Amino acid sequence: MGETTVGQWFGPLVRWALVTRESVDDVAGSVVTLLTDFGLSDTFVGQMKGEMLSRTPGLTLVDLTHQVPPQSILIGALHLRAAWSAFPPGTVHLVVVDPGVGSDRRAIALSWQGHYFVGPDNGVLDGALDGAEPDDVIEIDPRQLHAERISRTFHGRDLFAPAAAELAGGRSLSDLGSVVDPRSLVRVDVPRAFRDGDTVHGTILIIDHYGNGITNIAAHLLEGAVARGIEVQCGEFRCSGLAASYAAAESDEALALISSMDTLELAVRDGAAATRYDLQTGAEVTVQFS
Amino acid sequence: MGETTVGQWFGPLVRWALVTRESVDDVAGSVVTLLTDFGLSDTFVGQMKGEMLSRTPGLTLVDLTHQVPPQSILIGALHLRAAWSAFPPGTVHLVVVDPGVGSDRRAIALSWQGHYFVGPDNGVLDGALDGAEPDDVIEIDPRQLHAERISRTFHGRDLFAPAAAELAGGRSLSDLGSVVDPRSLVRVDVPRAFRDGDTVHGTILIIDHYGNGITNIAAHLLEGAVARGIEVQCGEFRCSGLAASYAAAESDEALALISSMDTLELAVRDGAAATRYDLQTGAEVTVQFS
Amino acid sequence: MGETTVGQWFGPLVRWALVTRESVDDVAGSVVTLLTDFGLSDTFVGQMKGEMLSRTPGLTLVDLTHQVPPQSILIGALHLRAAWSAFPPGTVHLVVVDPGVGSDRRAIALSWQGHYFVGPDNGVLDGALDGAEPDDVIEIDPRQLHAERISRTFHGRDLFAPAAAELAGGRSLSDLGSVVDPRSLVRVDVPRAFRDGDTVHGTILIIDHYGNGITNIAAHLLEGAVARGIEVQCGEFRCSGLAASYAAAESDEALALISSMDTLELAVRDGAAATRYDLQTGAEVTVQFS
Repeated sequence: MGETTVGQWFGPLVRWALVTRESVDDVAGSVVTLLTDFGLSDTFVGQMKGEMLSRTPGLTLVDLTHQVPPQSILIGALHLRAAWSAFPPGTVHLVVVDPGVGSDRRAIALSWQGHYFVGPDNGVLDGALDGAEPDDVIEIDPRQLHAERISRTFHGRDLFAPAAAELAGGRSLSDLGSVVDPRSLVRVDVPRAFRDGDTVHGTILIIDHYGNGITNIAAHLLEGAVARGIEVQCGEFRCSGLAASYAAAESDEALALISSMDTLELAVRDGAAATRYDLQTGAEVTVQFS
Repeated sequence: MGETTVGQWFGPLVRWALVTRESVDDVAGSVVTLLTDFGLSDTFVGQMKGEMLSRTPGLTLVDLTHQVPPQSILIGALHLRAAWSAFPPGTVHLVVVDPGVGSDRRAIALSWQGHYFVGPDNGVLDGALDGAEPDDVIEIDPRQLHAERISRTFHGRDLFAPAAAELAGGRSLSDLGSVVDPRSLVRVDVPRAFRDGDTVHGTILIIDHYGNGITNIAAHLLEGAVARGIEVQCGEFRCSGLAASYAAAESDEALALISSMDTLELAVRDGAAATRYDLQTGAEVTVQFS
Repeated sequence: MGETTVGQWFGPLVRWALVTRESVDDVAGSVVTLLTDFGLSDTFVGQMKGEMLSRTPGLTLVDLTHQVPPQSILIGALHLRAAWSAFPPGTVHLVVVDPGVGSDRRAIALSWQGHYFVGPDNGVLDGALDGAEPDDVIEIDPRQLHAERISRTFHGRDLFAPAAAELAGGRSLSDLGSVVDPRSLVRVDVPRAFRDGDTVHGTILIIDHYGNGITNIAAHLLEGAVARGIEVQCGEFRCSGLAASYAAAESDEALALISSMDTLELAVRDGAAATRYDLQTGAEVTVQFS
């Protein structure tokens, strides 16, 4: 068998494999998550996905949630904080809670701990950074995206989704716009819990789907709680001790435990604490050590 | 190295690569969108996806929305109109808003501008066509799908999803049924806006997730609005001028602007116009030029 | 062309192809379905997907529903029963309706008719088994998952999703934990319909998105209904005969027909029977043969 013959078969095979891979397989496994306040009753989310798949076929698209209360940057940031690190390095997180769309707020993309984040510069991406300085930040330049149209009301589809798709497809951050000073980023103001002697003061950040009140009181602020005993209060909600799990309480009983976000959670076994005790986002929570 | 030796390795490699590709990779990147009135509280959508992945592994499945009001062909058509063109050519759009399931309404599939559309012949697919004649239309022949069962209540799973999966997997339209005269298609009656002298008369088509009223008044009917000034009215909703973006209004202020669908949109900055002014689908909207 | 030269090209090509495939393509087409009571307003579902994609890139993830009423094992089981068999063999069904999370209820994975099922041992997986003995069952051993952390409140993310991803990625059931006696599985108590002379007694199991009442009366219990005629009653809901499809009734008319799950369904043409007649899950249904 001569070299020519091998080349006749071998070259095309390699090229065929490479070309096919370039078009789809190179990005197979590339993940883009979506987090918005768009809801699910319109096709806004679908349109963003269409734009991304048009640019970068083969992407894996994962919804975080689209039920952020309209224009609530804080809730968007908190959901991002809860979820981003569950994804593999290289994931692009597309976050669109954007009350300032069409204004001069910046459209940014940044890298942080091996992940990418794309969204408006209004603090919502700070949910992932939590005050830290990202590795790199750019302001997205629409010209680098060769977008056909950019509406004044839907940058999610026309600007952010294209940028996310380009990043997921392998384009570099620096290729999509000009460098931004990380210190100039808008930050989100998440209420902080603190300990004052034998009392920890905190706040309910989110009421979850089950009606649990997820607070900002980190587990480390409650060190010694099991041994010493604590009293937890939030309005009419009161309970004693830190439960190991929901199953540690009787049915219908109020309990406090460490949530899946590693913060204090107010719950009712087999019930909805928020409904029972009228818990609200922003309500004050106190933990009194015995 | 002899030919035999090369063949021993080379042949199997090529076959292995080809076979694997045929089973999954050939359709990697093939997109099917889903648009229904099935809601998300049952597994109807999941069952359709299961049927499709059983026929064509590796498909990329994208939800447009499943919150079309039950049996509302018009709203289904409008959502399809808003979203289909964001997807890459070759995409199959599976649309199931099907009050006539089990009757003699036809089950059709058609091609149009490089996309495929599958659904009942009740006008819902006309959302994409907007009155135009598609390139090709067939009536789906269940025998061509080799479906095991076809229920009388769930053609989405038993007929439309299989047809969509076959198209996405590479089967031709003509292979799935018999040709239909495009002029025989059922059309949807979308209210049309019109200009009468200095007044444009239109209608609210959709209330979106934010409570914005999306009208049928296309941007081109409003040419000169910025220069001349306009008064927009819909019941108690009134505002002056055409805003460039939400950010152009004060918080809580009523405004009118061009939506992401390139039509007039009635909004309240940081609020829900539909709730504030009791906007309803079908309500009359007038735009008066100064 | 010498052997060495061929080897220089051939070996790396094969390795490149194999390595790339192992990392992503080997599981391309592997499907994991998700069925939970997590709702969509938090990122719980997204976090589970992130954990799975971190372990097994390239998975196809399909939501069945996340709107199971909180902690309702029965409804979860019924949704699983309706949907699992639409998926291809090899699919992993991840089911998390888990009121006992953090207690000593077992975390299990099992194989049945070529599919895998992962979830708590509380009866929810019995929706697929319907009382049958699965082929193999194991109790998931967290050490086999090398999980970094296992919270007390979110085994969906920390235990079940990792196990599902490992199975979908090719690990064997026996590799993930120790064998469990199938006869020790917790079962779900689905009310059974029965025929007593000329009367069939049943129950409404689910109210679907359209407000149809889906009963537990299997089609075979209604043999002869069309020929002999039947009267169907459930509280104020009454109708005569078994309709072939919704389209067989007048608009607004009550009708009974065979659902897509092959059981009796109570409906109102173009309306919501549950609202009209106050149908509830658990309500008694009688079918009287003429």
